[in-house]
Amino acid sequence: MSAGWFRRRFLPGPPGPAPRPPKPRASPVPYRRPRFLRGSASSPGPADTARRPDARPVRSPARGRALPWNAGYAEIINAEKSEFNEDQAACGKLCIRKCGFGAEDDQEWLTLNSEEFLTGHYWALFDGHGGPAAAILAANTLHSCLRRQLEAVADGMAATPPLMHLSGCCVCPSDPQFVEEKGIRAEDLVIGALESAFQECDEVIGRELEASGQVGGCTALVAVSLQGKLYMANAGDSRAILVRRDEVLPLSTEFTPETERQRIQQLAFVYPELLADEFTRLEFPRRLKGDDLGQKVLFRDHHMSGCRSYKCVEKSDLKYPLIHGQGRQARLMGTLAVSRGLGDHQLRVLDTSIRLKPFLLSVPQVIVLDMDQLQLQDDDVVVMATDGLWDVLSNEQVGKLVRGFLPGNREDPHRCAVLAVEFSRGLALHPCCS
Amino acid sequence: MSAGWFRRRFLPGPPGPAPRPPKPRASPVPYRRPRFLRGSASSPGPADTARRPDARPVRSPARGRALPWNAGYAEIINAEKSEFNEDQAACGKLCIRKCGFGAEDDQEWLTLNSEEFLTGHYWALFDGHGGPAAAILAANTLHSCLRRQLEAVADGMAATPPLMHLSGCCVCPSDPQFVEEKGIRAEDLVIGALESAFQECDEVIGRELEASGQVGGCTALVAVSLQGKLYMANAGDSRAILVRRDEVLPLSTEFTPETERQRIQQLAFVYPELLADEFTRLEFPRRLKGDDLGQKVLFRDHHMSGCRSYKCVEKSDLKYPLIHGQGRQARLMGTLAVSRGLGDHQLRVLDTSIRLKPFLLSVPQVIVLDMDQLQLQDDDVVVMATDGLWDVLSNEQVGKLVRGFLPGNREDPHRCAVLAVEFSRGLALHPCCS
Repeated sequence: MSAGWFRRRFLPGPPGPAPRPPKPRASPVPYRRPRFLRGSASSPGPADTARRPDARPVRSPARGRALPWNAGYAEIINAEKSEFNEDQAACGKLCIRKCGFGAEDDQEWLTLNSEEFLTGHYWALFDGHGGPAAAILAANTLHSCLRRQLEAVADGMAATPPLMHLSGCCVCPSDPQFVEEKGIRAEDLVIGALESAFQECDEVIGRELEASGQVGGCTALVAVSLQGKLYMANAGDSRAILVRRDEVLPLSTEFTPETERQRIQQLAFVYPELLADEFTRLEFPRRLKGDDLGQKVLFRDHHMSGCRSYKCVEKSDLKYPLIHGQGRQARLMGTLAVSRGLGDHQLRVLDTSIRLKPFLLSVPQVIVLDMDQLQLQDDDVVVMATDGLWDVLSNEQVGKLVRGFLPGNREDPHRCAVLAVEFSRGLALHPCCS
Repeated sequence: MSAGWFRRRFLPGPPGPAPRPPKPRASPVPYRRPRFLRGSASSPGPADTARRPDARPVRSPARGRALPWNAGYAEIINAEKSEFNEDQAACGKLCIRKCGFGAEDDQEWLTLNSEEFLTGHYWALFDGHGGPAAAILAANTLHSCLRRQLEAVADGMAATPPLMHLSGCCVCPSDPQFVEEKGIRAEDLVIGALESAFQECDEVIGRELEASGQVGGCTALVAVSLQGKLYMANAGDSRAILVRRDEVLPLSTEFTPETERQRIQQLAFVYPELLADEFTRLEFPRRLKGDDLGQKVLFRDHHMSGCRSYKCVEKSDLKYPLIHGQGRQARLMGTLAVSRGLGDHQLRVLDTSIRLKPFLLSVPQVIVLDMDQLQLQDDDVVVMATDGLWDVLSNEQVGKLVRGFLPGNREDPHRCAVLAVEFSRGLALHPCCS
């Protein structure tokens, strides 16, 4: 990707050659629920559903169908917000090296490869918006992208430190020393593969949605276990935590217009054309109005990290703010509540031709846990959830619920499955949550 | 500052109007040592100087001349590296509100103002390079810029939360609520004032050096105490720590081409013109050569945070790397070891017209300590030093030395002064350090 590519794609330029004729439209992405839910039925909400007829039913894998690592999963059918549940999930075994998929239809979850070189596991949550298509495509595609990207670097990971040349040959005899001096580790290659896989998947989604005339986007939260490490890759506002006996470790950070303010303002500073004279990149405590003109008011610009200053209000400051609102209400260009994710290639500000995609990143942040070093215990649990959970429960509250539940159910191999259902049943009483 | 400003200043464009005739050249910035060193003499190095005739003498304020908060200061005369000591320091009382300086010549340190509104203290270290002029200008100027910037926001800081309108009037009755919702605090305005002061000082240095035909730059590490808070602002590779009985708290992070790789590569991605076809923005484990062509080698680009991947080497990858070398040897464009600081407006890559300034930031990172909340004790000490100290001692080693020295000298009001001299005497045995 070059600066030229970005400019050609997103910035207005001189009229180019005539656009290619539209491709024949592909059929829409078929709607589905995660594969591992096949055979399951929706269970009713919690005991007080009778008093709350609006409580939504909870769906989880059929009893006896274990997910990798006996992971639990549950979802609330989102019938009240939209016709389809916009969220998706996927999990499976990850076998890196040889190409070719297993016969997916016969299996409860994805087997990415039948021959092994490196094996691991993969769990993913996709929180969709603007329609279910992007999250479905992500659930169908991201693991394949990841497998391809991991296979592309697997030979390099074979040595410690990783090979400078993928072929294994040393152009310079001290190449291993250079790699070691730079502190490059095998896990850096896995992180790189995750970053590239997210980008590749985003491109696939863009092409597929364009071809089928659909729209939409999704966040992505992905856990991968490989070679004794747990990788948590996050693009969006979902969240993962590790609950241990004495602590709750955050495994991700949320990416929203608020948390990524500086990156977004910086892009608007470099390419003001992206705002099409409709938005101001400056942040004020509230949207300014005519009476503020000429006054000195608090503001923040791209280069200001933890600080504020005052500026004299000019007419251009009265435009709609690039990032507006507070907390859950914060929106990018008044439209989108997340700043990273997959899809949204066609998303435009309502009634304008202004695109949001240039401000969105598909690259995830990846956090690595060394599972051996952490000496994980039986009762240590990773909780991954979309904002529906985190809007009503804090990390500490979730930790307390997990710690209160698990020790009393040590004998049940499906205890994480039961726990996930319990969480969702609690959430089913908050129909306002996504 | 706008994107247009950046483009006009640093990017090649169509021929503009004829340049303004050169101003009459001002006289060079006169060389001096910090004002509070007046009357002091260089003391010999440590006891074993006799065995090490190359050990450099140490200079510190004359006994009895206390610095604010009984701070200690010591420097090594840098006679072996250059004719002048390129480093500088300043400290003084900070009185915010009214204009006008005290009669500086009569005082041991700077009194910034004789009438008080808010009072605090200021300590600063400037590590110069390419000549002493930039550090001298910074020591002469930065405190005035800071006072001006603080005075510009002092009225806004008078209320809690700070006033949305500097005038105090409320255009919208719920303005205080908006400010509170955004979590804006008085300390954000002080941080903003520090950031603006660094930028203003950088502009002053640029103008003065151009007028006097001098060159050079410096890092800046500034501590400010104000309203129960300690602000540590850092632009460069100096470092501050807080040594407490049971812990050592870092109060700054270093800004070097290595630690700011992503920001620097990102700028080169957006404005490839800045590399003038001489450099590659990509990072490889070592500089590539002809034999690497066509091979797949480890690399890192601007969007890759903690990760690496492989790419097929093309001819353009053989160019000199934008950031090259490792650790202390890492250089920006083969020239500069720091990525933030003041000055360097005229600095160019040797024998080329390629400027480094667009890649350098004058904005500091500011860390805030709440001194009340920390319940600071008598033996808690802030240590500020340039890389000369940190190249030979770790945070923990410095902490151990401080803890070993202070408790045995509780009665001596000048014990920090003695401690600073002891540190420098130790360093005087490492003449290789700057």
